[in-house]
This record gives sequence, structure tokens and C-alpha cells, in this order.
Amino acid sequence: RGLQTVTLIPGDGIGPEISVAVMKIFESAKVPIQWEERNVTAIQGPGGRWMIPPDCKESMDRTLIGLKGPLKTPIAAGHPSMNLLLRKTFDLYANVRPCVSIEGYKTPYTDVDLVTIRENTEGEYSGIEHIIVDGVVQSIKLITEDASRRIAEYAFEYARNNQRSSVTAVHKANIMRMSDGLFLRKCREVAENFKDIKFTEMYLDTVCLNMVQDPTQFDVLVMPNLYGDILSDLCAGLIGGLGVTPSGNIGANGVAIFESVHGTAPDIAGLDMANPTALLLSAVMMLRHMGMHDYGKKIETACFDTIRDKKVLTGDLGGKSKCSEFTEEICRRVRDMD
Amino acid sequence: RGLQTVTLIPGDGIGPEISVAVMKIFESAKVPIQWEERNVTAIQGPGGRWMIPPDCKESMDRTLIGLKGPLKTPIAAGHPSMNLLLRKTFDLYANVRPCVSIEGYKTPYTDVDLVTIRENTEGEYSGIEHIIVDGVVQSIKLITEDASRRIAEYAFEYARNNQRSSVTAVHKANIMRMSDGLFLRKCREVAENFKDIKFTEMYLDTVCLNMVQDPTQFDVLVMPNLYGDILSDLCAGLIGGLGVTPSGNIGANGVAIFESVHGTAPDIAGLDMANPTALLLSAVMMLRHMGMHDYGKKIETACFDTIRDKKVLTGDLGGKSKCSEFTEEICRRVRDMD
Ligand SMILES: CC(C)[C@H](C(=O)O)[C@@H](O)C(=O)O
Ligand SMILES: CC(C)[C@H](C(=O)O)[C@@H](O)C(=O)O
Repeated sequence: RGLQTVTLIPGDGIGPEISVAVMKIFESAKVPIQWEERNVTAIQGPGGRWMIPPDCKESMDRTLIGLKGPLKTPIAAGHPSMNLLLRKTFDLYANVRPCVSIEGYKTPYTDVDLVTIRENTEGEYSGIEHIIVDGVVQSIKLITEDASRRIAEYAFEYARNNQRSSVTAVHKANIMRMSDGLFLRKCREVAENFKDIKFTEMYLDTVCLNMVQDPTQFDVLVMPNLYGDILSDLCAGLIGGLGVTPSGNIGANGVAIFESVHGTAPDIAGLDMANPTALLLSAVMMLRHMGMHDYGKKIETACFDTIRDKKVLTGDLGGKSKCSEFTEEICRRVRDMD
Repeated sequence: RGLQTVTLIPGDGIGPEISVAVMKIFESAKVPIQWEERNVTAIQGPGGRWMIPPDCKESMDRTLIGLKGPLKTPIAAGHPSMNLLLRKTFDLYANVRPCVSIEGYKTPYTDVDLVTIRENTEGEYSGIEHIIVDGVVQSIKLITEDASRRIAEYAFEYARNNQRSSVTAVHKANIMRMSDGLFLRKCREVAENFKDIKFTEMYLDTVCLNMVQDPTQFDVLVMPNLYGDILSDLCAGLIGGLGVTPSGNIGANGVAIFESVHGTAPDIAGLDMANPTALLLSAVMMLRHMGMHDYGKKIETACFDTIRDKKVLTGDLGGKSKCSEFTEEICRRVRDMD
């Protein structure tokens, strides 16, 4: 079997150094992939339409798999969020975030082990807004049958493929009877085809309350866009924040982009202080997505062992080590496993 | 000074017994108020319009202050949520929930001391929804300048009157630029008139993440309707759940209704097992709203002392006592303070 190619978008700020960290760790694990590096800076195409650079688009269309660091969104007026632009360009309809407690990393919670699956293309993110009269504004939340069925199917298939036993649909259909009602109906319909997976429904407010009281009651959660934005960050908080939470975006036509969802941290960029864990664990998700479970397991174990061991940690993880030292420690553990 | 009258809406399920508990505790504290009991079952007026019973409306219009237990919403088709109907009837535009850690009551968090202030009349709760074409539905989030200014002013005034030092506006104006943008602009404008209160802005997802990591960083939070629905429940979870969280709804024209926000718990109704804490602490909020700070303090102290002491607690609080025993313990402590 030859090398598979993955498009690497290092990103801005600390992006390049955490990307180097991941590449080093992959190398020491002898993962049979090669990287094709691409930059993503939005450019304006014909008619002023914002788009990602053609060479990045071309690479993704060919490799189908991307790993991406944090991107800064320029504050120029009218400039779209780079994350939204990528979601749109590749129809990345499912945002998947496994939130699993990391042993030895102190948070108020232990034994969190859940996955949020967020519809990533419509809902409150439609971008359709109007001024009705002076001082009265409306934003439109758009829910479609197709997108709802698609995300529900993704969630149940994910549950089945990942040995998870239940899917909870998160909604406010008591308030948004038509839109969340449609979403919920599609979840119920799809559930019928997955009798091996338990299906439950819960109001978003109740989920939030239960989540902070006992997150262990949840398994896979599926929900419309904005609710996913909220819950995925809340759940990241439960296990230690965006610095340790992996994320994957699954698109139509087989495309998938895995990414760290933390910021670019410009204040520490280039200082060898960044924590590469979120990008590394996203890369592990990517390996599993590609079917390379053994490589994924090996790297994940080395990463978790390093954190549990507490001897070589970056500052944000409570240690005093540099990014390169933390990286080398993981590499060493990976090599030792051979 | 004579007795002030308060409208008491005992509600359904455990509502009547926790209302009795509150009345007993108020009696032992010799609070100079008298109760005017009213039932709330929605009735259909002319043209089939759902409304609350006229004698309840009349009482509230006269007393201006209500205390209310949980209400069940009949599942009859088209039946409105009783809570929404009350909000609408009295234009209860601000939902206020102080979330303060209760000493001795175990949760993963300590020292939580914040207040969520939720716009209660518009936003995602507009009820305006359409089917665009088959399989495509829209819900309209309506944000107005007037309602945004009104809730922002309420939040800053609340902060000032309650010796709180900061107000955080919670929003997603990066996504809903017009609607949340308008809300945020009004908050900023109002902040200009309250230079003694620190003003900050934060994305809803970031608030959720920070909230579960360190809730002590927050003070007063103000936000549109749905975000308030979510955050107020999340924050209730941090201090022990809806069974110990008070809530107040402030309306136009001086009306205010204080309520426990937990459910009717039909399974334990009438069994003398219910925990009256949420309704009692809501009644304490009510006393403060009415300017009766000393009575409020006394009752609150007796309640918190009882919980901290751990000897007489209802089942949900981790004890074995009946509702009436828990109530009598608080009464005893109140009497002992004289
Ligand atoms: C950056 C922002 C547009 C984005 C969102 O709101 O979706 C972010 O919060 C996320 O979750 O990826
Ligand atoms: C019962 C329901 C309509 C309500 C809401 O969504 O506002 C509840 O969750 C609340 O917070 O009072």
C-alpha cells in the first residue's frame, strides 16, 4: 500500500508550529501518509465573491482529506469567517466533536465520553436577515428536510460505526414548532431504521442543565447548527477546553476536514509555547476516519500517557515545557511502542 | 403600615404543597403580606383566543405582585404553554435568575454568584414560522430596538441596585449580524449611561465554555430570549438544579411574578416529599423586590442554614425528611432569630 496524501492547512498564529508538531509525531509513528501543504487566505473572485485559493480547493478535491490549524479572519468589512467559507465551499455538513475526559487532566468532571454532532450548513446560520421597519429586525432560521435527514443519518451511522449505544436529538420544538419540529421528525424517522441504537429527544435547555450536572448520561447528541455551536463548546469546557478538544467536519462527496477549534493565539505564536494537543487529537480522528485505527490508537495513547504522566506539559496544560519538548516526549513514547 | 396583598398561584402537581410551605415560613417570620389565591387554567375567550382566568388577571392587575408554583401545560392540540401565556398577558419582559452557590450543597462548583437576565418577549419566541416550499421551513427571530433597550436598561439598573459590578452582553452577532447586532448595539448604548458598571460582550458559545470552566468570572449577564433560556438552565445546573434556583419575571407597568421553574412532579404530588426551596427562594426575591429586605434575609438565612446543617433535608437534597419537616425546620430557625 502506498502513501495516502492529506492536505495540510497549517493556518495562522500558532498554526504552523502545532502543525510541525503533528507532522513530527506522525513521522515517528511511521504513518503512511504524505502532506500536501496549502495556505488558506480568502481571495476575491469574479464579482467580488470571496473564495478560498484555487490551489487549496484543487488539493482538497483531489485528496478529500484535510487537516487544518486555526485560521484568523481578517477584520476587513464584509470579509467572511474563514471557517464558514470552508464549510460552504466543501459542503461540510456535519461537525463532529468527541468529548472524552482526559485522565490526569484536572476538570470538575471525570468520565465524560460523548460526541456532539452539529448540522453545519443551515439553521440560524442561513445569513438571511432583514430590517422590517426602523428598529425591527428579523433573522431567518432555515431548516430543510434534506439537511435534517442527512445529519440524522450521519449521527446514527456514526453511533453504529463507533460502538455507541444512543443518540439524543436536541431541540426546542416546543417553541419553534415548525423548524425544530421538522428537524425532530426527521430524527425520529431515521431512528426507525436504526433499531440497534436507542433514540431519545431532549430540550436544549434541559440538555444544558443535565450536561453540567451529569454529562455521563449522554452519548451521541445531534442538533441544528446554533445548538451545536453552543453545546460543542460547552462540552469542550467539560473536558478541559478547546486546547484539548478534537473536531472533524464531514462533507458531501467524501470530503472531510479535521481541525483544532481553538484560536490562533497570536500572543504566543512563534515562541514554541503552543499546545498541539487539539490538532493532534483531530489528526487522530482523521486517521480513524481513514481506517488507520492502529496508528490512531498508538498516537492517542502516547498523547494521553504524556498528559497523565504530567512531567512534560506545555504551560496551558499546567507544565513548564516547550511545544517542541512536549512533542518530542510524545514521539519518544510512540517509538517505544514498536 | 398595613398588610400588602400578593397574588398566589399555587399551580399544579406539587405546587399546592410547596405553596403551603412558603406560607407557613412567611407566617413564622411575620411577613406583613396577605395572600390572595388564584388558579390558573387557561380558558378560551371570544374567538377561541387562549387567556388566563379573569379573576386571576384582575388580582394581578390590582396586587401587581405574584408568586407562582409550577403549572402543567395540557397537551391538547393548540394549547399554549401556560408560562408563555403568563409572560404575554403581563408583558413580563425580563426573566431574572440569580444563581448563587449554596454552601453545603454539593455540586462540582463553589462560589458561583451570577445573575442571568433574559429578554422574555421576542427573539426566537416570536412564534412566526412558515413553510416556504415542501420540506423547507423558516422560523423568524425578531429583535426590536425597543425591547433590546428595555432589557439592557433593566440589566444595568439591576446591577446598580444590587451592588453588582459588571454586565456581560451575550450574543452571536458574528453570525446574526443584524438581529444580535441590534441587540448588542443597544446594550453598548445603554452601557454609556452606566459608567459605574463594567460592560463586556461575549459570544454565547464562549460564555458556555467559560461558564463550565470558571463561572466565578461572571456577574450579571444579559441576552436575547433563547440564549437566556439556555444559559439560565445551564447556570441553575451549576448550583444544584431547578429545585434550588429562584426566578423572577419583571413586567411592564410594575407587574412582577416570582416562580419556581421546576416541573409539577406529578409522581410525588401530595406525598409530602417535595422540596419547597426554589419557590421559597423565589419568594425571597419577591420580598427584596418589594423592599422587604430584612424579612428576605431572615428567611433566606434560615433556608441556607437548614441546607448547610444537613440534618433535615428532603430526598432530592440528599436527606430523608418530609416537605413538612423541612418546612418546620426553617420555621423554627426563623422564629429563633427573633
Ligand atoms: C467562528 C464562528 C463563525 C464559529 C461558529 O459560530 O460556528 C465558531 O464558533 C465555531 O464553532 O466554529
Ligand atoms: C416551558 C418553556 C416554554 C419555557 C421556555 O422555553 O421558555 C421554559 O423552558 C422556561 O425557561 O421557562
